[in-house]
Amino acid sequence: MFEDAELGHSVSKAEYARKSIVLRDALLEAQYALKESRKYPVIVLIGGVEGGGRGETVNALTSWMDPRHVEVNGIGEASDEEMERPRFWRFWRSLPAKGKIGIFFGSWYTWPIVNSVMDLKKPHWARLERRVGEINRFERMLADEGALILKFWFHLSKKAQRKRLKELKTNSLTAWRVTQKDEDFFKRYDRFVEVSSHVLGETSHAHAPWIIVEGTDRRYRELAVAQELLDALKSRAERGVGTPAAPATPDPGPDVDSERTVLSELDLTKKVPKAKYESELEKWQGRLALLTRHKRFRDHSVVAVFEGNDAAGKGGAIRRLTGAVDARMVRVIPVAAPNDEEKAQPYLWRFWRQLPRHGHIAVFDRSWYGRVLVERVEGFCSTWDWQRAYSEINDFEEEMTGHGTVVVKFWLAISKQEQLTRFKERAAVSFKSFKITDEDWRNRKKWDAYSGAVCDMVTHTSTSRAPWTLVEANDKYYARIKVLKTLYERLDSVLG
Amino acid sequence: MFEDAELGHSVSKAEYARKSIVLRDALLEAQYALKESRKYPVIVLIGGVEGGGRGETVNALTSWMDPRHVEVNGIGEASDEEMERPRFWRFWRSLPAKGKIGIFFGSWYTWPIVNSVMDLKKPHWARLERRVGEINRFERMLADEGALILKFWFHLSKKAQRKRLKELKTNSLTAWRVTQKDEDFFKRYDRFVEVSSHVLGETSHAHAPWIIVEGTDRRYRELAVAQELLDALKSRAERGVGTPAAPATPDPGPDVDSERTVLSELDLTKKVPKAKYESELEKWQGRLALLTRHKRFRDHSVVAVFEGNDAAGKGGAIRRLTGAVDARMVRVIPVAAPNDEEKAQPYLWRFWRQLPRHGHIAVFDRSWYGRVLVERVEGFCSTWDWQRAYSEINDFEEEMTGHGTVVVKFWLAISKQEQLTRFKERAAVSFKSFKITDEDWRNRKKWDAYSGAVCDMVTHTSTSRAPWTLVEANDKYYARIKVLKTLYERLDSVLG
Repeated sequence: MFEDAELGHSVSKAEYARKSIVLRDALLEAQYALKESRKYPVIVLIGGVEGGGRGETVNALTSWMDPRHVEVNGIGEASDEEMERPRFWRFWRSLPAKGKIGIFFGSWYTWPIVNSVMDLKKPHWARLERRVGEINRFERMLADEGALILKFWFHLSKKAQRKRLKELKTNSLTAWRVTQKDEDFFKRYDRFVEVSSHVLGETSHAHAPWIIVEGTDRRYRELAVAQELLDALKSRAERGVGTPAAPATPDPGPDVDSERTVLSELDLTKKVPKAKYESELEKWQGRLALLTRHKRFRDHSVVAVFEGNDAAGKGGAIRRLTGAVDARMVRVIPVAAPNDEEKAQPYLWRFWRQLPRHGHIAVFDRSWYGRVLVERVEGFCSTWDWQRAYSEINDFEEEMTGHGTVVVKFWLAISKQEQLTRFKERAAVSFKSFKITDEDWRNRKKWDAYSGAVCDMVTHTSTSRAPWTLVEANDKYYARIKVLKTLYERLDSVLG
Repeated sequence: MFEDAELGHSVSKAEYARKSIVLRDALLEAQYALKESRKYPVIVLIGGVEGGGRGETVNALTSWMDPRHVEVNGIGEASDEEMERPRFWRFWRSLPAKGKIGIFFGSWYTWPIVNSVMDLKKPHWARLERRVGEINRFERMLADEGALILKFWFHLSKKAQRKRLKELKTNSLTAWRVTQKDEDFFKRYDRFVEVSSHVLGETSHAHAPWIIVEGTDRRYRELAVAQELLDALKSRAERGVGTPAAPATPDPGPDVDSERTVLSELDLTKKVPKAKYESELEKWQGRLALLTRHKRFRDHSVVAVFEGNDAAGKGGAIRRLTGAVDARMVRVIPVAAPNDEEKAQPYLWRFWRQLPRHGHIAVFDRSWYGRVLVERVEGFCSTWDWQRAYSEINDFEEEMTGHGTVVVKFWLAISKQEQLTRFKERAAVSFKSFKITDEDWRNRKKWDAYSGAVCDMVTHTSTSRAPWTLVEANDKYYARIKVLKTLYERLDSVLG
């Protein structure tokens, strides 16, 4: 969910100066068009981590636009007036009228998330789910009534947030801004990320998308928010009002600084030397073998998903995994195009069939992610189909994790150059040549399209309960060890 | 929710014979067309109360159609195979393929509802809500994947169910069918109705509607189900696959025996003589006055909604209510067409503004129900707008009741003849003539359209937490007493 927002996106001073002038003009113009038309209200929610630049961004937005038609609502503790009314009353009071922009700094998300994070024991998921249902119905209604809704989430990695709090505290001018509450809250950073990524995943819809913005760089986040707001205003003005929005995917993230992606940031030079590989392999295979004999594994199961570039070494990595455990408890499911029986069912059906019993491991060599990778890129399904698949897949995996299944997902990444080398090698070595087909060469031509699809996939389906692990796979040894180690650690954290 | 299914709908032997022949032919034909096209699966859920005729209806359906392409799935306790997989695994196993019809006798609704009803203490709403969310996403996905989904709920009134269980028990051939579990369950009839009406309300969508069928008469329920299934198959065949279903209202109920409605069944001859009226008025006003001074009322509030035919006596009934309580705690909100400020907001906005604080009573003289009454009938909003309003209104009222507000809703019903008498009287008496306008006469011409809208409104928005009270109002005295008494009893049950 937040992977893309931990890459250190930034914008240079010069670029900021150049772009912000154009943006400000365009935003002001769009705002006046909105005001003149009086056709719909714009609701902008600002949420995210402390120190992620929420306040500064709100200030920037209001200074860039005509403040007479922007209303900022800070949502703190409820007043006694508000306490005596139903929960949403305070938000209804502050809804912007048609033609206006209402910015909610803190919103209907604030207390459900904070309460879940601060609950003494573990987050009360059932209650949270209830709030999420109410929020979804509320926003659906607002959108059906014509509102344009944008939700920004400002994210900082744990490290970045620690640094930010420290900076604020050591500067005497800003130290007052860091309260004891902020510090208590920071202690629960991991749970905060778990809860908020869950909530964001369940509440991001085409009619009210979440846009995740990395909060470290002021220039980046201002441009990102302004650009998203402008795009939304423009496309809404074109689309008109009154027609229900088509179901579609949440926004894949700001386009500002799009050079930097979760794939481009991988260090593909990572290596494990052969000698070390052999001892490491033995170590992790042994540990994994022991773990699968753990008494508690009888109440759990494992679903391991392997996706990756062609020739990235999925097969080899899978064999090192199956080699570690009792053959009766593991099953490898190679996934190719669906057969006729499978085509007569929803696309997830063939994967549901293969879910393992307790005490068992199912290894998917390619998986349901075909929907948002090959089917998307090759046009085997409609845009609408692959866009709705993100949340369907999240639901599917949540069914599993909710039942005690450990879901591990690997993307094995190699460089385009490394792929070429391997393709050529495969073609040359006769016993490997069955592994290389015309299709592989065709896919290679769509390298960039596939890369984009992978980044979207990670953003939308890497959840705290079923995260993606990106594996640097130019070195096969390194990749195999990382896979085994990751699987061991995930399983250990559940059984231990 | 279940009002229409407690009216004693029935079909005569002759009518059944005549209609069933036609229906069987048409159903078989539609089934073959479905099978040939192989374009989508049909999923039929059968739920409802014990003794409501679920089994018999399933048998009738399968005997009417080609059983080779109908699969019946009985869902009982989970097997150990199923227990070791996520909750929905067993249903995925049984999904019908494209071209087939799968009947689920018991379904993904069964256990969430049963568990909620049988919980020792009060139903665990938060957990139930979570299940409801999962179900909604599951059905949404199935529908998006092309499935045609129909959900039938067989209802019996408490009295009818008691009678039915007794009949089964006294007949030695059927006594075995009534288990101790059934009897235990029947003891919780009221809670069962509360839980199931909530679940049905939250899960009825155009792409997977609930159709509520009265279960007392075998012929009625068989025709009703067969007719609904046929209509759905036909309209789906026309619409084609692949386009997402437009958001729309749940089905307003079977058209078989539509002469009998919640309005037609009211006994409008009910009367209270003047002398008795005066003592009763004093009694209920006095009780109500005491109740509003109750200490616990400081943590609650009342929202009273008055709707009714023109000239049904809303104003008079409201005055008897306000006359009973301290003027500082009650406020009457007359609702006319929205002003400009209100038009610039979602239609519920002007009602949210008026929600009372704790210890206060808000009386709405007409209300948000205008959306599904006058706005629907007069075409002031689009079909899509008023259809989605049912669930929006239910959400709105649930926000209130969840907060401790007592929501009472009155429909004051008079006969068409009585209305005419009152119109003429008003026109003749000079000080009353302001009360009768051209619009009243115009509305009167649409009597049947309004009646239909009222019945749909009651079916979709009479929930266990915010039920409608239909008030026989040909006699004003009777109506006023019924209003006061109902309000007293609802408030007493919350405070007492």
